[in-house]
Amino acid sequence: MALELINKTNDIKKLNIKEKKILAQEIRDYLVEVTSKNGGHLASNLGVVELTIALESVFDVKKDKIIWDVGHQCYIHKILNGRKDALKQIRKLNGISGFPKTSESETDCFNTGHSSTSISAAMGMAKARDLKGKDNNVIAVIGDGALTGGMALEALNHVGCTQTKMIIVLNDNEMSISKNISGMNKLLTRLRTKKTYRKTNKKGRKIISSIPLLGKPITKIVKKGKDAVKQVFVPGMYFEEIGIKYLGPVDGHNIESLEQLLEKAKAFDEPVLIHVLTKKGKGYKPAEDNPSKFHGVGPFDIESGETTGKKKKDYSKAFGEKLVSMAKHNKKIVAITAAMRDGTGLGLFAETYPERFYDVGIAEQHAITFAAGLAKEGMIPFVNIYSSFYQRAYDQVIHDVCAQNLPVVMCVDRAGIVGADGETHQGIFDMSFFRAVPNLIIMCPKNFKELEMMMDQAIDLKRPVVIRFPRGGESSITFESNKRLQLGKSEILKEGNDITIIGIGKTVSKAYEVSKELEKDNINSEVINARYLKPFDRNQVKESIEKTKKVVVIEDSTILGGLCSTIKELIAEEELNVKGLYYGYKDKFIPHGTPEELEKKYKLNNEKIIEDIKGL
Amino acid sequence: MALELINKTNDIKKLNIKEKKILAQEIRDYLVEVTSKNGGHLASNLGVVELTIALESVFDVKKDKIIWDVGHQCYIHKILNGRKDALKQIRKLNGISGFPKTSESETDCFNTGHSSTSISAAMGMAKARDLKGKDNNVIAVIGDGALTGGMALEALNHVGCTQTKMIIVLNDNEMSISKNISGMNKLLTRLRTKKTYRKTNKKGRKIISSIPLLGKPITKIVKKGKDAVKQVFVPGMYFEEIGIKYLGPVDGHNIESLEQLLEKAKAFDEPVLIHVLTKKGKGYKPAEDNPSKFHGVGPFDIESGETTGKKKKDYSKAFGEKLVSMAKHNKKIVAITAAMRDGTGLGLFAETYPERFYDVGIAEQHAITFAAGLAKEGMIPFVNIYSSFYQRAYDQVIHDVCAQNLPVVMCVDRAGIVGADGETHQGIFDMSFFRAVPNLIIMCPKNFKELEMMMDQAIDLKRPVVIRFPRGGESSITFESNKRLQLGKSEILKEGNDITIIGIGKTVSKAYEVSKELEKDNINSEVINARYLKPFDRNQVKESIEKTKKVVVIEDSTILGGLCSTIKELIAEEELNVKGLYYGYKDKFIPHGTPEELEKKYKLNNEKIIEDIKGL
Repeated sequence: MALELINKTNDIKKLNIKEKKILAQEIRDYLVEVTSKNGGHLASNLGVVELTIALESVFDVKKDKIIWDVGHQCYIHKILNGRKDALKQIRKLNGISGFPKTSESETDCFNTGHSSTSISAAMGMAKARDLKGKDNNVIAVIGDGALTGGMALEALNHVGCTQTKMIIVLNDNEMSISKNISGMNKLLTRLRTKKTYRKTNKKGRKIISSIPLLGKPITKIVKKGKDAVKQVFVPGMYFEEIGIKYLGPVDGHNIESLEQLLEKAKAFDEPVLIHVLTKKGKGYKPAEDNPSKFHGVGPFDIESGETTGKKKKDYSKAFGEKLVSMAKHNKKIVAITAAMRDGTGLGLFAETYPERFYDVGIAEQHAITFAAGLAKEGMIPFVNIYSSFYQRAYDQVIHDVCAQNLPVVMCVDRAGIVGADGETHQGIFDMSFFRAVPNLIIMCPKNFKELEMMMDQAIDLKRPVVIRFPRGGESSITFESNKRLQLGKSEILKEGNDITIIGIGKTVSKAYEVSKELEKDNINSEVINARYLKPFDRNQVKESIEKTKKVVVIEDSTILGGLCSTIKELIAEEELNVKGLYYGYKDKFIPHGTPEELEKKYKLNNEKIIEDIKGL
Repeated sequence: MALELINKTNDIKKLNIKEKKILAQEIRDYLVEVTSKNGGHLASNLGVVELTIALESVFDVKKDKIIWDVGHQCYIHKILNGRKDALKQIRKLNGISGFPKTSESETDCFNTGHSSTSISAAMGMAKARDLKGKDNNVIAVIGDGALTGGMALEALNHVGCTQTKMIIVLNDNEMSISKNISGMNKLLTRLRTKKTYRKTNKKGRKIISSIPLLGKPITKIVKKGKDAVKQVFVPGMYFEEIGIKYLGPVDGHNIESLEQLLEKAKAFDEPVLIHVLTKKGKGYKPAEDNPSKFHGVGPFDIESGETTGKKKKDYSKAFGEKLVSMAKHNKKIVAITAAMRDGTGLGLFAETYPERFYDVGIAEQHAITFAAGLAKEGMIPFVNIYSSFYQRAYDQVIHDVCAQNLPVVMCVDRAGIVGADGETHQGIFDMSFFRAVPNLIIMCPKNFKELEMMMDQAIDLKRPVVIRFPRGGESSITFESNKRLQLGKSEILKEGNDITIIGIGKTVSKAYEVSKELEKDNINSEVINARYLKPFDRNQVKESIEKTKKVVVIEDSTILGGLCSTIKELIAEEELNVKGLYYGYKDKFIPHGTPEELEKKYKLNNEKIIEDIKGL
């Protein structure tokens, strides 16, 4: 059992190649076992078992810096660095994170979570090394999908220009989270083709020369080492053109080849990119067959690969189905996603209306301005991006959509607390940063039905609209009526005189539940579904607060700048004399855990709210 | 006089080539004349005189869509499309904008202002055209500097992959706003080299083959047309590799060559990039010699090129000088700018400490995460980016700097109203979007001295810090003391009992001026310099408000989410019984005009505030 020999950093260095191969298999089994119970990012981790082993064999992670782009493929790294047993509690409250965290280990040298940051961070660390006169290595490991992200390309440019000594490992698995769609992918495909070329030699050379766009690449095969790692330098290529030495492609599941190429890369005194070919889900058939499903997966049955536990309909699905039905009658509707086709529920749309569906890759900035261009020329774009990734497109929302008042419908999936993915993925800032933007309408549906109504309304408004909804399903509460929506008008769900409870989106059911509980103590509360954060229904809220003189506000986001702020502003501006209780996340990054656990930890659970209200 | 013949859209089409050449000279003279009086973006406009004439000769801007990236080079376009006389009022209150505005003319087909958006917008418009079954042309005109921006590269990838029919005109003037530093630039330099090659033929071919990184490019020279426009297809190159046909390079000051190449590009049914070589400042010697100075210039003397009106020391200069003096003693300090070396006052630093200075190009996302990498390894990065461009790096501030609590000092220049550049450049959102970010300290100096003290303090804090300061100089008020800064502590500048007036940053002097005026009416006001938006000095502000029962808050930003919100929150949370007057920009995009004019227009001028206070 090789895995037994791995207990702390650099234990991997004691293993011989045979043991490492055994270790790879044992790690795979362990990964499948753990994620089948906890859920997690399985496919991407299975793809980098050998790569991680090779990297940590060649480099010294106590000194050298390895930055894992996106970071969800760090499980093997954690196993190799003192967290083998802790992996069983990965992504659980108080357990280790599913992403690299500098707070967990010095070997996690930089936190990641969002895509395409690693080259920038690595370059900063490399420049710091040079300024300090140190000689450690810096390595960015980045997937082909992440390479479509603009900031990775910005960083490549800078690295190439400054000739900063560092290694970029391009983990090319031919798909990002959804199938990778981009020109960069096209380029990589051509490089992949060269793999065949290397094998077939002369014949292959002819094949590659006949690919029209490549022309006649000038290739040079260098044989080095007893296993004859073939390195194909293609000097005319993109990476070399911008100043980065290109090595590869190399089989990412061959530890020996990888180690040899990494040793070679280490010797260069300039930036080097190693092109590594891997397979997502490698070694576990259900994940190989369906890597998208096993990208981020819930608990599953190891034998069959079937997800255990019934999957309820979620907001993403509700959104996707509604959009398909709208698009049937309205030919102007187009849908845009940034590499999250399935995650955003747009799979059905993509299949039904492929000519009106655009997966732009991990490129949120482009997604929004592309939508603005479509809208300017009369189309109705629905963009769906996760809350935390809208942070990437903030300028485009302001500058390209809202400043021109263009009718782009910006759906914000995974808004609020998302759970196991933790602090980089919690969607707790969007209400604040969107509220500051002029011309923008912000809607938050309390359930699927209201989401559908808001999607219809968004089209009628012909203005920039944000519709934000949470990860997961609607609450089990059945709200009786869904009156016709009126822009900027809130909805009174329950009348009462003792206290006003205001929720928005997901927290509307919470407000309602709290209200029902309070009835037992004869506290008669008025429940308001705010519906629109902007324009905000000042009149109805003011009227209710003036009546009850007590207000409770509950939001699933940071307490700075969202619903709580809006109501506090109202109270101060109108000089109302009101007692208030305000519930939101208190200006902190929120780690992983289930939404329920986190609500409790941060004192947003119903019991706590009820207790506070009784104390008023 | 050819310019006399140009009165409305498509008048240009009536001119013959000889007349167009005369027109080009007349336009140059007119541009110099107008900007010498109004100021404006002279150098970039002088660079595209012939390009604009050729584009609008070949295309029909009533139908075809030409999107000018960044947009400050749109003056000639405005002259050709009914705004020849209006140009005299460009960038002035109620005059035309210095950027394309759809509200001014249907020929301004998409608003621009920030860099690198044009390809995304153009692709959206091209896709809309295809979905609608129309046949108009879509053209993005983008500079080489803007091509370092990540979103432009995201868009290029998508265009290449989808083979969307559109034309990208690469306006290569070898510099963005500062000297262009990037790998992409390196690539373009190599393409430029080929110009020589084309001229020298065989000899040149050898030269180019010997450039090591290029290897042997496969070039094909195609002669077409009587003037023998030479087109060099280099199939192995970046653009072609990602699926975009490359034509050029062509002399951007030769109208005939340009027209011929544009006609050719029009005929392609796939994406085409035309590489146009231009010279910033072309035809006006002072601007040719110093294009950076004439990028965005104030009024100047035409003969000498000397700026008229004495230039006061501004915040950028104060920042730059202080940083140089700090860096002398502290070797860990490094400085980062995103193509705004001179604009941010970092010129002196770059000259004094070139090894610690990084101009990353127009790449704000990379700039911030690069800084995070440097900070993680012990350096002290000072990044200086304009307020409106931080919108581009919002995710990186959250995800890479603040979530890891890294000591990056993020200086926010041009915060608040900037004036003539108008709505895309007003820095009115940063207080709101930064305030929502955990771990972040937000400082706003009232004058140069306080800026210097805050820069020192920022280093001591070893945490993420934002220091925001306005465009231009400090106010003429001399504040007596500058007590030692204490994190999160405000400063009472003047004690009083009748009313509390709170300012932050630039508006502190305004608060003070208002207070002085009120003295004349025996209104005795307390003036507080908030200093820190976050952490906010609740105690002192609360104490003062409780004493006076009246509060006036003045901020130079949107009223949603900044200082006014912070104080309203305090009032509501503490259930204070207070009368309040709140001054900020009321949830609108703010057009161009001088800061003074805009203050008056939006009712933030001293007279209005004093009048309101008297009415309390």
